[in-house]
Amino acid sequence: MKPPAVVRLSGGLDSTTVLAIAQDQGFACNALSFSYGQRHAVELESAEAIARLAGVEKHVVAEIDLRVFGGSALTADIEVPKHESVADLGGDIPVTYVPARNTVFLSFALAWAEVLGAADIFIGVNALDYSGYPDCRPEFIHAYEAMANLATKAGVEGSTSMTIHTPLISMTKAEIIRAGTTLGIDYGLTISCYDPSPQGSACGRCDSCLLRRRGFLDAGIPDPTPYQDSGAPA
Amino acid sequence: MKPPAVVRLSGGLDSTTVLAIAQDQGFACNALSFSYGQRHAVELESAEAIARLAGVEKHVVAEIDLRVFGGSALTADIEVPKHESVADLGGDIPVTYVPARNTVFLSFALAWAEVLGAADIFIGVNALDYSGYPDCRPEFIHAYEAMANLATKAGVEGSTSMTIHTPLISMTKAEIIRAGTTLGIDYGLTISCYDPSPQGSACGRCDSCLLRRRGFLDAGIPDPTPYQDSGAPA
Repeated sequence: MKPPAVVRLSGGLDSTTVLAIAQDQGFACNALSFSYGQRHAVELESAEAIARLAGVEKHVVAEIDLRVFGGSALTADIEVPKHESVADLGGDIPVTYVPARNTVFLSFALAWAEVLGAADIFIGVNALDYSGYPDCRPEFIHAYEAMANLATKAGVEGSTSMTIHTPLISMTKAEIIRAGTTLGIDYGLTISCYDPSPQGSACGRCDSCLLRRRGFLDAGIPDPTPYQDSGAPA
Repeated sequence: MKPPAVVRLSGGLDSTTVLAIAQDQGFACNALSFSYGQRHAVELESAEAIARLAGVEKHVVAEIDLRVFGGSALTADIEVPKHESVADLGGDIPVTYVPARNTVFLSFALAWAEVLGAADIFIGVNALDYSGYPDCRPEFIHAYEAMANLATKAGVEGSTSMTIHTPLISMTKAEIIRAGTTLGIDYGLTISCYDPSPQGSACGRCDSCLLRRRGFLDAGIPDPTPYQDSGAPA
């Protein structure tokens, strides 16, 4: 029997690739999405379509409302910044950073893993392309794993050791796209944009769109994304 | 100006004592409660009354639904166990344990602390009286603090060090009750029962009731709790 795993699935390019990698590694995948007051609820529709197509064991959408705290362009009423090209992306932590988001997401994943008896959690954090979010760094993931191994029944009983898998953590966007394409992913189903139209077409100018466009260019793979300004350079 | 802190406030005896301690230590307290599909929603009414009386800066009730994962008597349809006395409490992890609950709670507290610019989080975990929950042990708290210091903007910028305060962690229930009584707490406002009546009276027989009754007895302080079996021994 395949060992169970919990896979964080946003409906974006990275997490969809992680799901394919986890399945390729032989895990029975349980996909976890969040409805957290994000601007782009269209990404949840992508997550559902991707989970169904991938044939996951179960797909759960957990409701969490981080808007009660405010503090981010993705959950509060702050404008999503737009840029002309990747070269304009600064090194600072952007306003689209959601406070402690991965900490919150991993905590729900840990709760579900404990219920399922799963010892493996997959999450698509990436230290290179991720615009400098603190909770995407390897040292954060290692510290989270150490904590997780003390937080649960398994930690007390010494029966299982929890592993946080981050297969993308040191890959470039182009490498991620190449890996996913080899595994047969249709990236036309995924959405990365922080500010998509209600119909789901990507703005093409937010940090996430710029990194995605550049990734497909660098990978030499056609970008299936419907951008609002489809002719513009990445 | 008083430094801001986030205080986890359930409406129970322990967290109410923690709030009084944090205020006594000079913090401007922001109280955080959770609506997480718990059986005893009456504890949220207690939390609101306690927060108002204490004059906190702000009280937020975050909605999180851990029922999507199941797995605990406090959130799923499993019967809360009842006992005749404290001596009947086993050393095993009880079914009232909610998977990864403190990990989830602390993650929300961390998100709010980051938005507030607070470097201090208070939580009423207790290693002695807490029926053997893995996420109430000091080693878990230390690992969580290490992770929290890598998870946030402050961790990247090196500007603030996050501290998880657990003032009750090595106190007996009687010591907690004595400390809170000295600080002027009216424990009649707090509720500990895992299975209260809709009107808010305590069952008197669940793990939490038994520990509370014994605590007041040991402290030599009258127990103001309305028990359904008020005459029974603890």
